[in-house]
Amino acid sequence: MLVNDRLLRALHRKPVDKTPVWMMRQAGRYLPEYQALRQSAGDFITLCQNPEFVTEITLQPVRRFELDAAIIFSDILVIPDAMGLGLDFIAGEGPYFQRPLHREHDIQGLRALVDLEDRLHYVMEGIHLTTTALEERIPLIGFAGAPWTLACYMLEGRGGGNFLKARMLLAEKPALMQHLLAVLAESVAAFLYQQWRSGASVLMLFDSWAGLLPGWAMDMCCIDPIKVIVSELRRRTFPEPVPIIVFCKGAGQHCTELMRTGCDALGLDWTTSLGWAKEQTQQRVALQGNLDPAVLLLDDIPAIHAQVDRVLADYGAGPGHIFNLGHGIMPTTPVSNVQCVVDRVHEQSSAFHTGQEKHGCGTNTAIDF
Amino acid sequence: MLVNDRLLRALHRKPVDKTPVWMMRQAGRYLPEYQALRQSAGDFITLCQNPEFVTEITLQPVRRFELDAAIIFSDILVIPDAMGLGLDFIAGEGPYFQRPLHREHDIQGLRALVDLEDRLHYVMEGIHLTTTALEERIPLIGFAGAPWTLACYMLEGRGGGNFLKARMLLAEKPALMQHLLAVLAESVAAFLYQQWRSGASVLMLFDSWAGLLPGWAMDMCCIDPIKVIVSELRRRTFPEPVPIIVFCKGAGQHCTELMRTGCDALGLDWTTSLGWAKEQTQQRVALQGNLDPAVLLLDDIPAIHAQVDRVLADYGAGPGHIFNLGHGIMPTTPVSNVQCVVDRVHEQSSAFHTGQEKHGCGTNTAIDF
Repeated sequence: MLVNDRLLRALHRKPVDKTPVWMMRQAGRYLPEYQALRQSAGDFITLCQNPEFVTEITLQPVRRFELDAAIIFSDILVIPDAMGLGLDFIAGEGPYFQRPLHREHDIQGLRALVDLEDRLHYVMEGIHLTTTALEERIPLIGFAGAPWTLACYMLEGRGGGNFLKARMLLAEKPALMQHLLAVLAESVAAFLYQQWRSGASVLMLFDSWAGLLPGWAMDMCCIDPIKVIVSELRRRTFPEPVPIIVFCKGAGQHCTELMRTGCDALGLDWTTSLGWAKEQTQQRVALQGNLDPAVLLLDDIPAIHAQVDRVLADYGAGPGHIFNLGHGIMPTTPVSNVQCVVDRVHEQSSAFHTGQEKHGCGTNTAIDF
Repeated sequence: MLVNDRLLRALHRKPVDKTPVWMMRQAGRYLPEYQALRQSAGDFITLCQNPEFVTEITLQPVRRFELDAAIIFSDILVIPDAMGLGLDFIAGEGPYFQRPLHREHDIQGLRALVDLEDRLHYVMEGIHLTTTALEERIPLIGFAGAPWTLACYMLEGRGGGNFLKARMLLAEKPALMQHLLAVLAESVAAFLYQQWRSGASVLMLFDSWAGLLPGWAMDMCCIDPIKVIVSELRRRTFPEPVPIIVFCKGAGQHCTELMRTGCDALGLDWTTSLGWAKEQTQQRVALQGNLDPAVLLLDDIPAIHAQVDRVLADYGAGPGHIFNLGHGIMPTTPVSNVQCVVDRVHEQSSAFHTGQEKHGCGTNTAIDF
């Protein structure tokens, strides 16, 4: 029984008093207390792999702002790392793998993670410690990278480009790509299930590079693997299936197909109109998003307010909106602007939630918590 | 009267014997004869500003491959350069401006180009020389950057990022952004008109960063300025309006709205299905695209063939398809793969064009050439 269950209610498209708000990368580099920990305690991977630091960092933004959810401090690339690819970070350049999937043989030999409770123990322990510390005040979101996005990094060995190697493999050997995605889907499902067992009450999939997929491969590489993961999680968490948010960046045009993965909410980047997506999906899923993170760089409070108000109005009245950015908070974001957005969402959104009990929630078939 | 008028016929959705094919950046770095000219004659800007070199480089791919169109060798950033921003290129990093639009005052003071026949004379002269050299064998495409994409570079001063400055200005001072876009739309229309007068028989607009626009600003920043340009060009080239191709990368989901700009064809990147877009636009515009340029990096002819065939099948039977890539040819592309694609399109596409005369072309209201 959470003290603040706005996020869960929104995920189930039930009435709320105010639109719940949290932000992708809310725990991270824009916060001075995070920077201080980086200085004193070690690099990003060291922090990620230490459950005490994970807990501390996850809680940092929750102490500052009235957020309606926490999200565990981790990285989408911990699964490939646990598979033996050797995750590392180059300062200023981002992640790379010491042993990317170079040869066909590497891919064919890849098997789903079986010992993830061991290899990713630090994530589960971080979730356990964090949920204990949160004392049921707000829900904790667990997450993973979706198979296509993980495959992009595993084949390219690093980010920063256009993931040509993944796009080439897809065109040349689609069956091999399917094998890779199937192995990853199985691993991701198992990993997210363990996160739920450790205390995460919402799960989120990040397909950060879905927007690079050729149209013909969208089903095969993005939607189908996610469908496998969602079904498996729903089956394993029956009769109270864990709510799942699917965020496929750059793929808002496919929102109706994405809804058919069986997820509870779709994350939308800032390029897709919430109003349009709501119309397309007919409120059969909740929608999460979608303020342009560039807005948080402005030194202009009225302009930030206007943009928050625009997002709220774009979704409009009715349940099922989770306020978020369309992408992660940028490291140069002033802390006071995050405060400004969180407060504005809570202040302005109640007008969109008056008299909702009478409206009902459409075709909502979700389980009551 | 062109010897090969496949492109013009496809633009007017008239029957053709084979699907016309050309490729974005077909004149460029992947060609050894271009590299040789770079070595002997000078850097990119030197080549761009010399009409003889422009002609030579534009013709280089036409000599090698059976392309159905040539596109003038130039750059989308010549307009801001002519406006005084000082275009330069850093080796390996791309374009930058010596004098970007830093202050509000810079933007407010910006006026549409009036002396472009003088300042961009090198483009018109290059077009004139090239059309003379082409001897009416194939059409020559003239082009320009669309206002939003030009604004992105002019505000940021360079490429390579996510154009945060343009996104911030848009959120903070939308009226100032509108002023900038209006000035650019007027300049682009005048520039394209001059290209047509100099001999270009098709014009193309590149909105390369349309995919960065927030949903709410799509009309204001992309569609409306393009509509202004298209109307102006149709008016000034009446009663035989010049055919116009609009390519808004990352904005395939908006294809029906983009069609309403009055253009003759929409370019589509590789992430949007041609079949889906054809259904959406009901063949009221031609569609251009959309092979993933990553496919041209494969050392696997059967795989390249399969991908070409997939694009042809995705568009299917009927007039109005212009085969192209979903983005420019990459510099590391083997020349033989470009040959392979051009030949495959011509070989395989005739099957999609049998008996078309009987079908008619839907609501085609285009002028007969």
